[in-house]
Amino acid sequence: MGEFELIARYFTRPVPAPAPGPAGRVVLGVGDDCALLAPAPGMQLAISSDMLVEGRHFFADVAPERLGHKALAVNLSDLAACGARPLAFTLALALPEADEDWLAGFARGLFALADAHGCALVGGDTTQGPRNLSITVLGEVPAGQALLRSGARPGDDVYVSGTLGDAALALAALQGRLPAHWRLPPTVLAAARARLEQPTPRVALGLALRGVASSAIDVSDGLLGDLGHILQASGVGACIDCSVTTLLIAAYAELSSASGLFDSEFDPATDGEFLRRCTLAGGDDYELLFTTAPARRAAVAAAALSSATPVTRIGRIEAQPGLRLVDGKGRPVPARYASFDHFAASSAGAASNPQEAPGK
Amino acid sequence: MGEFELIARYFTRPVPAPAPGPAGRVVLGVGDDCALLAPAPGMQLAISSDMLVEGRHFFADVAPERLGHKALAVNLSDLAACGARPLAFTLALALPEADEDWLAGFARGLFALADAHGCALVGGDTTQGPRNLSITVLGEVPAGQALLRSGARPGDDVYVSGTLGDAALALAALQGRLPAHWRLPPTVLAAARARLEQPTPRVALGLALRGVASSAIDVSDGLLGDLGHILQASGVGACIDCSVTTLLIAAYAELSSASGLFDSEFDPATDGEFLRRCTLAGGDDYELLFTTAPARRAAVAAAALSSATPVTRIGRIEAQPGLRLVDGKGRPVPARYASFDHFAASSAGAASNPQEAPGK
Repeated sequence: MGEFELIARYFTRPVPAPAPGPAGRVVLGVGDDCALLAPAPGMQLAISSDMLVEGRHFFADVAPERLGHKALAVNLSDLAACGARPLAFTLALALPEADEDWLAGFARGLFALADAHGCALVGGDTTQGPRNLSITVLGEVPAGQALLRSGARPGDDVYVSGTLGDAALALAALQGRLPAHWRLPPTVLAAARARLEQPTPRVALGLALRGVASSAIDVSDGLLGDLGHILQASGVGACIDCSVTTLLIAAYAELSSASGLFDSEFDPATDGEFLRRCTLAGGDDYELLFTTAPARRAAVAAAALSSATPVTRIGRIEAQPGLRLVDGKGRPVPARYASFDHFAASSAGAASNPQEAPGK
Repeated sequence: MGEFELIARYFTRPVPAPAPGPAGRVVLGVGDDCALLAPAPGMQLAISSDMLVEGRHFFADVAPERLGHKALAVNLSDLAACGARPLAFTLALALPEADEDWLAGFARGLFALADAHGCALVGGDTTQGPRNLSITVLGEVPAGQALLRSGARPGDDVYVSGTLGDAALALAALQGRLPAHWRLPPTVLAAARARLEQPTPRVALGLALRGVASSAIDVSDGLLGDLGHILQASGVGACIDCSVTTLLIAAYAELSSASGLFDSEFDPATDGEFLRRCTLAGGDDYELLFTTAPARRAAVAAAALSSATPVTRIGRIEAQPGLRLVDGKGRPVPARYASFDHFAASSAGAASNPQEAPGK
């Protein structure tokens, strides 16, 4: 199978006839030197790129369908964090060989998610090389309404969507880095692994938070690291309640009730610390972290409801720079969690976690 | 040096204050989850992505400044082929390590070309991995005026810009694949190598051909292969005069006059065939191949003049499908040139040329 046949067979689909709404923005898709988009009046284009490298962001033997999903999901998550509606994406793909089963599975996972969001593949590139997936996604947002990292203000509530840490738990299990006495039940591992391999981009929540959130980012490198980006961009600090964030790991409830794992042997100093590290600095969550003025709590609840996405209030923005962690009684918790840095060999993340999260 | 410091040091530059014209389209650049562009009324967005893989599209020891230039140039060439004006690009970069000298050189070459075209770096991704450069470029073109592959009509003239084959000659020299008795003078090799490593995207010509060309494509995989895409998309055939195209290799004039190489030993059956292969199927040229109605010859000349880009008429579009090559006297020349196919191990290109051209 040649390159052009590969593109024709797996990555070319008819462009729908011009239609009202976002689907009608694609004037020309795959097959010419460029794709063409017709922006709508009053809309700005939101653009983001993420690259996934085999052995770094995914295992060589991951199910190709899941990888197709994830490669697009991490990009859609960036649109969600800006409150942008997905329009189109390009895919540049380096593959060691043209494996038809792999390509069919990859394309299935990719297009299932793309179709669910009305996001059209409009172009890209295929080449031979070490496996590498590079996607650029384009979305639209009304001028001036994009959610940015820089809008957090002292007194704002800090929220996170969904659950945190399950992807990191799955990765630790797959890499044999769980605490020695832990035995994850298969159902727990499967659920956590699905979070790692098929994250849910919070696009609907991002759209619902336009005009509500004062700042937003998606959690890809770990909650604290990504919160740090908001604090830096906004020139503020924050206080986060660890007793809330630690409970956001879905596996915790499963484990406590189903396996008895934590009944006899649970050691807060080691087991508790491991869970906390997963939720605070695990990464690969693709949840939205956002801030809102306290007066907007009803609007946040409405956004969560309309987008069918749970959100949890985990802390507050403060004027004093820096990040303070507290327990349920307001007592300081030492903050020693490094988020993943792709080139810092000495960072805690790089040392303990040879698979990084795409997304920043 | 960490990832975020790397981005800050080499790839973050201030976004200019909103200005009239294309520079004012960038509302938000590097540093948030997405970049934001404000499209101009009546304009369509042209989008293209190309990925360059070390050992496949470039040598590991290529000068990083030249590589920075080329990674963007091959993408700008796609915009040129559509008649689109460059606005912005994203860069996803996988590197084995954060080598500061390499990064400084790469960024210098990249931004020199970007600045020459008013094209802003607005986002991207950096990660550790086998060296891979993936760029997505965005341009704008008035609605309905994009140059497409599908507009060639029987009777149209076929033109190509600049010179062809010098990049392929340089690659053959660097890989020791020149005919045995050839000795390229250093000045000839240096000029050809500059064409391989620092191609010139024909952006100004592409803009000047709006409303003039009936179809266009950029020559990245080789003249005949890329002409084939126009013929297929337009449902037509073509006749190309090899006596003209073979002379388009700039090195030929240099070699004939300067070195005496061809005076005594030139064998049309082997040496001539080698040159012809470079010009017809060499690839990596990044010239524009386009068609126009014969009535527009004066307009083509004006476009060439206003863009300071030489163009040469090399053939004609015909109603009968297929590609016919003729010599200067109109006699058929057998067409046995395969263009590069990235996954076809048996193609002539893949067999003889282990470095492929990015761009399709």
